[in-house]
Amino acid sequence: MPEISLHRPYPSADVPAWDCETDVAVIGFGAAGACAAIEAAEAGAKVMLFERNSGSGGASALSGGEIYIGGGTEVQKAAGFEDSAGDLAAYLKMAGGLNADHAKCELYAAGSLVHFDWLKAQGVPYKGTYVPGKIIEPEGDDTLIWSGSEAAEPFCLSAKPAPRGHVIQFMGWGGGRKLVDILEAKARSLGVEVVVDARAAALIEDAGRIVGVVMRIDNANRFVRAAKGVVLATGGFVMNPAMLAKYAPLTGKIRDPIGDKDDGSGIELGVGAGGDAIHMDEFFTTCPWTIPQSHAEGVFVNVAGQRFINEDCYHGRVSRTAVDQPGGKVYLLLDNAHFEQPPEFARVSIAATGASWEEVEAELEMPQGTLSATMAVYNEHARAGRDPLFGKRAPILQPLDQAPFVALELNFETSYFSFFTLGGLKTSVDGEVFDRAGTPIAGLYAAGRCTSGLPAWGHGYSSGMSLADCTFFGRRAGSKAAA
Amino acid sequence: MPEISLHRPYPSADVPAWDCETDVAVIGFGAAGACAAIEAAEAGAKVMLFERNSGSGGASALSGGEIYIGGGTEVQKAAGFEDSAGDLAAYLKMAGGLNADHAKCELYAAGSLVHFDWLKAQGVPYKGTYVPGKIIEPEGDDTLIWSGSEAAEPFCLSAKPAPRGHVIQFMGWGGGRKLVDILEAKARSLGVEVVVDARAAALIEDAGRIVGVVMRIDNANRFVRAAKGVVLATGGFVMNPAMLAKYAPLTGKIRDPIGDKDDGSGIELGVGAGGDAIHMDEFFTTCPWTIPQSHAEGVFVNVAGQRFINEDCYHGRVSRTAVDQPGGKVYLLLDNAHFEQPPEFARVSIAATGASWEEVEAELEMPQGTLSATMAVYNEHARAGRDPLFGKRAPILQPLDQAPFVALELNFETSYFSFFTLGGLKTSVDGEVFDRAGTPIAGLYAAGRCTSGLPAWGHGYSSGMSLADCTFFGRRAGSKAAA
Repeated sequence: MPEISLHRPYPSADVPAWDCETDVAVIGFGAAGACAAIEAAEAGAKVMLFERNSGSGGASALSGGEIYIGGGTEVQKAAGFEDSAGDLAAYLKMAGGLNADHAKCELYAAGSLVHFDWLKAQGVPYKGTYVPGKIIEPEGDDTLIWSGSEAAEPFCLSAKPAPRGHVIQFMGWGGGRKLVDILEAKARSLGVEVVVDARAAALIEDAGRIVGVVMRIDNANRFVRAAKGVVLATGGFVMNPAMLAKYAPLTGKIRDPIGDKDDGSGIELGVGAGGDAIHMDEFFTTCPWTIPQSHAEGVFVNVAGQRFINEDCYHGRVSRTAVDQPGGKVYLLLDNAHFEQPPEFARVSIAATGASWEEVEAELEMPQGTLSATMAVYNEHARAGRDPLFGKRAPILQPLDQAPFVALELNFETSYFSFFTLGGLKTSVDGEVFDRAGTPIAGLYAAGRCTSGLPAWGHGYSSGMSLADCTFFGRRAGSKAAA
Repeated sequence: MPEISLHRPYPSADVPAWDCETDVAVIGFGAAGACAAIEAAEAGAKVMLFERNSGSGGASALSGGEIYIGGGTEVQKAAGFEDSAGDLAAYLKMAGGLNADHAKCELYAAGSLVHFDWLKAQGVPYKGTYVPGKIIEPEGDDTLIWSGSEAAEPFCLSAKPAPRGHVIQFMGWGGGRKLVDILEAKARSLGVEVVVDARAAALIEDAGRIVGVVMRIDNANRFVRAAKGVVLATGGFVMNPAMLAKYAPLTGKIRDPIGDKDDGSGIELGVGAGGDAIHMDEFFTTCPWTIPQSHAEGVFVNVAGQRFINEDCYHGRVSRTAVDQPGGKVYLLLDNAHFEQPPEFARVSIAATGASWEEVEAELEMPQGTLSATMAVYNEHARAGRDPLFGKRAPILQPLDQAPFVALELNFETSYFSFFTLGGLKTSVDGEVFDRAGTPIAGLYAAGRCTSGLPAWGHGYSSGMSLADCTFFGRRAGSKAAA
């Protein structure tokens, strides 16, 4: 009997007996897997959905349940924002930077409104209310928030800004659990057979086509025939230290992976079948420095006392750029008008205080004329409503000139920098897993963070972009697999 | 007949007939392939060496023929430098950063002196003379140069500095061609059969073991049986735009790939056989800003007027960090005591001049108090022999205070930023290609830039590190394949 391995498909000729048969086998029961299962079942396919945990969830259930949607939803309109598919596409492409998959960006932008309707039709509730300001998730059960860098340069120069974070109606943080619960109920109502405590151990191949999967269930191998296809929806690899060290070594600078058994097994299965893994070095990270909200008006400097970004960008873009800085830490500078005690979970400390920026500079042991010169230039122009260096904009652009002053330390080793990976399988807009020559591997589909999708660049990530990718392209993968 | 593909080994059962048989087949006739062939032949194996061009060379022949060697060579000693294997290992690990392969660094450091003797025994001549200063390659036929960031922070803090670039005796630049010629002569003298105009089209597999290679010769497929193994030595992927876009998209910012048909085919062959490609986003780049040598004492700022590195580092480390800066360009600041006309091939232009740094700042349309403040702090401390921000050191640390002043523009799109890729197959110290689970693939070896080796981090690259890796680990791959 050949080896059962993530790294090499098992030959179907060596399957001793099929333990079960289905049309579509979906691996992983987060949002991507749930959406794939729903669409495959809607298309009339028999669907089995396997989850290695004892219930649905995945990283989706750890999220805020916020989906990046635009193009002019009724929520955007009610709040007075104009948006268009063109602006959404332009933003998504900028957010993907050099890694952007333009076909996915365009298709998502064109289909975003219809996708929003679909989510509601599945039973996902939206209150329809807008919360202004720079927040991470609503404190209440509101819907629409600014969840990216839309209003910040350079994004706002090429795409008309609008808030696009659409949050499930849920009191407080953590609506992702509710989102997955609703999708799970829908999948079950359609007859999707859910098998939990089941881990994918190998794909099964017949003459270059994926025809099934070996599931590890109750310590035994179960051979699952999938007549139409297998959909990988297993998440990223943030919980696999060996893969992080090999493929995303810069994550070694920070300490707080977020994920739910995201061990990269789907990526390994796909690559083992001839798939192509791309942008494997990319990761999202954020330190919750915009809490309290007054801190969003602060200024960041590195250990040389230099600013490095327009701080009105999304907190994750600022945090990701912070991690690029030399010296193991950055400082968030605040004045008396803005400082409040940061939340304990951020593990951010006060590194220096002073009656002037010169005093703060001295207490940080920076050379005279560095941080103080930075702040002199910043304040002079901020008073005039300008940031000639980085293009930060009002109303977040504020002078920091009310003594006393404070420098908070965001330390990569000790502060809370949560992170997850963005690299994964290269797929078509229909979730087909491409081989390294660019040809779809017959019978193999993937969606969510085991693929490289809309969120392809850590410096461009916006909240809700991963769930947008998981739900939209999860659906498409399920449809295509069932076709 | 199955497809002949880089992406999937060809089944040996389907080989119609073996066109030739050898013990070891080496693919690629640069320095890595030559060294592999020499050692395999020395070990008594029958060796065939295939090269897709009409003669030997590869990227090695485009280089300066400079090899990173240390630990106390007689050349280092004669020039008055102490070095040790420990310092060399420490430097190599720092130069690899988070990507460093510690086992390779340690083995190379321990074997560097013996490897130098081996090179000389092959007939590689070294004059034995030292040239001080910050140069790219000797103008004459001298041997020893500073070819990295050894004397610069943070490297010098953890590894005692010594020059380690050992250049083949050759008048002027470009000794790499001579190096390959000598290795070729040695290989031929040992009976290595060289086949040119021969491109590898597929590996051949038998029950998980690589047993040969399909060579494309005269528009026909030739089935080559390799009883002991195949050594991939095909170089990186800098000449493959599709691979660059997928795996090293940041190279899209710059314009001047250097390589010789380095299309990544060896990486594709290896991954197609189950191999693991790592650090694929990494690349070396340099703009020759240290020519004329007085420019090595200049100061770099980004478009925000901020310094970003201690400029006494290796020119490639400075250039690679420059490419990270926002805004599409950086400026090299010089005063009247340092400025000379830059060489035309660098495609560097004068962006601003002035009687003061304030005037230069204004001409660059930077806000008042940015570049000028940067230079005020720099000059104040440089006069005292200090660089408190980035740790630049004397004698390269010099105040720039003699009017008039100039800012040269290094523009990523128009200036000469040469680059080549560093990512590739994950291999053991013996050149065995690891599969994704970390197990060597039987019969498959690799060396040089189709692997990830000593030069694993663009920000830490030093001249001669790639040839050190190619020659040393090429030899080991050849020995292991022949064993």
